Amino acid sequence: MTSTQYLREQPAETGAPAPAPEPRKERAAVSRRGLLGAAGAGLAGLAAGAAGGFALGSEETTSSPQTPGTRTYPFYGEHQAGILTPVQDRLHFAAFDVITNSRAELVELLKDWTVAAARMTQGLGAGEVGPTSGPYLAPPDDTGEAIGLAPAGLTITVGFGPTLFSADGKSRFGLAGRQPDALQRLPHFPADKLDPQRSDGDLCVQACADDPQVAVHAVRNLARIAFGRAALRWSQLGFGRTSSTSTSQTTSRNLMGFKDGTMNVKAEDPAAVDTHVWVPADADSKGSWLAGGSYLVVRRINMTIETWDRQPLSEQERVIGRTKAEGAPLTGGGEFSQPDFHLGGSDEEPLVATDAHVRLVHPSNNNGAKMLRRGYNFVDGSDGLGRMDAGLFFLAYVRDPRTHFIPIQMKLGLGDGLSEYLQHTGSALFAIPSGIAPGEYVGQALFA
Amino acid sequence: MTSTQYLREQPAETGAPAPAPEPRKERAAVSRRGLLGAAGAGLAGLAAGAAGGFALGSEETTSSPQTPGTRTYPFYGEHQAGILTPVQDRLHFAAFDVITNSRAELVELLKDWTVAAARMTQGLGAGEVGPTSGPYLAPPDDTGEAIGLAPAGLTITVGFGPTLFSADGKSRFGLAGRQPDALQRLPHFPADKLDPQRSDGDLCVQACADDPQVAVHAVRNLARIAFGRAALRWSQLGFGRTSSTSTSQTTSRNLMGFKDGTMNVKAEDPAAVDTHVWVPADADSKGSWLAGGSYLVVRRINMTIETWDRQPLSEQERVIGRTKAEGAPLTGGGEFSQPDFHLGGSDEEPLVATDAHVRLVHPSNNNGAKMLRRGYNFVDGSDGLGRMDAGLFFLAYVRDPRTHFIPIQMKLGLGDGLSEYLQHTGSALFAIPSGIAPGEYVGQALFA
Repeated sequence: MTSTQYLREQPAETGAPAPAPEPRKERAAVSRRGLLGAAGAGLAGLAAGAAGGFALGSEETTSSPQTPGTRTYPFYGEHQAGILTPVQDRLHFAAFDVITNSRAELVELLKDWTVAAARMTQGLGAGEVGPTSGPYLAPPDDTGEAIGLAPAGLTITVGFGPTLFSADGKSRFGLAGRQPDALQRLPHFPADKLDPQRSDGDLCVQACADDPQVAVHAVRNLARIAFGRAALRWSQLGFGRTSSTSTSQTTSRNLMGFKDGTMNVKAEDPAAVDTHVWVPADADSKGSWLAGGSYLVVRRINMTIETWDRQPLSEQERVIGRTKAEGAPLTGGGEFSQPDFHLGGSDEEPLVATDAHVRLVHPSNNNGAKMLRRGYNFVDGSDGLGRMDAGLFFLAYVRDPRTHFIPIQMKLGLGDGLSEYLQHTGSALFAIPSGIAPGEYVGQALFA
Repeated sequence: MTSTQYLREQPAETGAPAPAPEPRKERAAVSRRGLLGAAGAGLAGLAAGAAGGFALGSEETTSSPQTPGTRTYPFYGEHQAGILTPVQDRLHFAAFDVITNSRAELVELLKDWTVAAARMTQGLGAGEVGPTSGPYLAPPDDTGEAIGLAPAGLTITVGFGPTLFSADGKSRFGLAGRQPDALQRLPHFPADKLDPQRSDGDLCVQACADDPQVAVHAVRNLARIAFGRAALRWSQLGFGRTSSTSTSQTTSRNLMGFKDGTMNVKAEDPAAVDTHVWVPADADSKGSWLAGGSYLVVRRINMTIETWDRQPLSEQERVIGRTKAEGAPLTGGGEFSQPDFHLGGSDEEPLVATDAHVRLVHPSNNNGAKMLRRGYNFVDGSDGLGRMDAGLFFLAYVRDPRTHFIPIQMKLGLGDGLSEYLQHTGSALFAIPSGIAPGEYVGQALFA
């Protein structure tokens, strides 16, 4: 069969070999939405947006006052998007192993990811040619399942795991001398039951959007682009954000049925963000490239749903230390009231039990440490024994895991009443480089 | 600690043992939305709705003209909801093994499921007491993660697998004599690589909603209610519906990037629905109880995403037989144009290849058989070898699998060009009983 006769909009270069990627040179950008037949006007508008796409994202540019589905967030800026961004509803998180030994190829991968991520977050296809046009004998440079879907507030956040810098005591890519002291594999915590196939990784991609297909499309295309340079190590879908990062959002519920993340650091409190989230310039002599970035702690926390569901409300509230209905501390008030850890009940016990989760994690009991959490609920089917494989995919951005996560988790593993109902099955730590300006590539400071 | 002092709305029966379920007697119904502090008016409105909840769902009642999130569909009616209902965006599908040998306990389970399903589809908690009130020392009769979430168009559809009727040559629950001839385990198809832990089951629950947390909440609570009587065998989450069941919906795309389900039976074509979906009263002497019901074919179809993504557009379109952009047949026209299977190209081959998917599945090549498909995309992480565990969770409602599915799938397994990129990893068949009236329980006709 000849290849051209039934294609009604056959491009001129039919049959030509696929051109090498030409990052940043915008050409005939095809918007996802524009491919809907009826969306001619939308096409024009978005194509214009695409042509100027790399000028978008200055820090001054805020999200459009559009309906949620059509919302876009700037890709470029002082910090990477997807941290302070109001938490979107859906997640696809992926960890990659770098399979090339070439530093140049690693840098090229990051450049290619930057181009694709900048495009996709603005509602465009992953590549300049698009899913349905271009060289007919070459694989499309976008996979097509997001054709017709709105940008859905997609953010793409990229990070570097400790093994990108060194492994088995050897430097990789000449980066060992730039590995921050804080960027080490997380220690073994009590009650950890980690699956290596759900842990660690050289690179990570956090794709958040209000449409799961948009988030999946983003990760899938970045995996496609990585072919021969990095391979998908593991990935996780999530739904029902369990924290809010903005005072404009309500606190949502985890699969224990409780509000989660009430005490979260919010974007509207820049002092708290500076203190607890961003890595300062003088944090670490080897990690100066990470200034303005953050650390992302990843924990896949299974819940023993069936056991939890058979506990009385009293037990559930006791181990959390808050009411289920409102999320108020058991010592009274509303969701955002501070618990009084000294207030006693009618017996000798304090109202907030000594092993209550809220007591152990509260900043007042952890040298003031707070996290910016961005976790999601997950259900990955069942485990073959009639139990749901479900829980919380915990994501937290912190200034330093040694002060803001490890001691707290160590304490939880030893003394948290909640840990009876939890099992940690995945774990990873990534350094999240700062944001970039148009013309730069993500993580560029590391390689400078 | 005493149990009452911090609960501001402690019910009178504090400390009393949990009352036995009292199906259909409405009492102090707590709406999910009403538990939001600010939603006092909503509480009143929904509580009223709850009190009348079992009067809802007559066939005349159509879905409310509300925004998508607050939409509800009637639970009661001539047919179960979730078949002709315009396909919602998210799916949680679950298969259960019945673990009791008591027919009475099985019937009680179906009664309990009916009560909970009728409530949850109307935006209420699974039980009358609710997630955060009631006997303080008893487990809540709702798990709470849907508090504050809108009904999200939830439908719950229940079915019976062949093993509910007989297993190992023996009758179960006295039902062997009522097992329809068509309700047999699906045969082994070429290219099947089935995982027993993702196949079969005595009972199934299809929960569809526009919010995944609402669908998950429904399945999780039905699993909780089943405790001791039925155990979760496997479950599957899906997103991005890949078919439409209404002409009011556009055709969406599967993870191959192509429109999927263009030829689907639509609710607006009642003649086609009657011909292809509903089981007629005289279909089967043993299966007369299934009149007005349907058969649900379930196939978990993995796609070799990475291989597919490296194929040229020409190959992708050749094996599908349609264009990727519009989904038009390769012989021209638009998405809904009929393909001309005889039209030749410039060489000896027909324009729609002899092994093109559209040719093999087209009704004109299958004695006119059509299906009502309701499938979803899925991504379940990766497989440990760097490949996405992703594809299409195929759900199709048909009048008889022996005429409307098995011969077509057998042909596809042998000759479909697409099968090079597919692997069937799960399979099941369920009989879906007709709908019920208030006061009845789902599947009641089977036990009459």
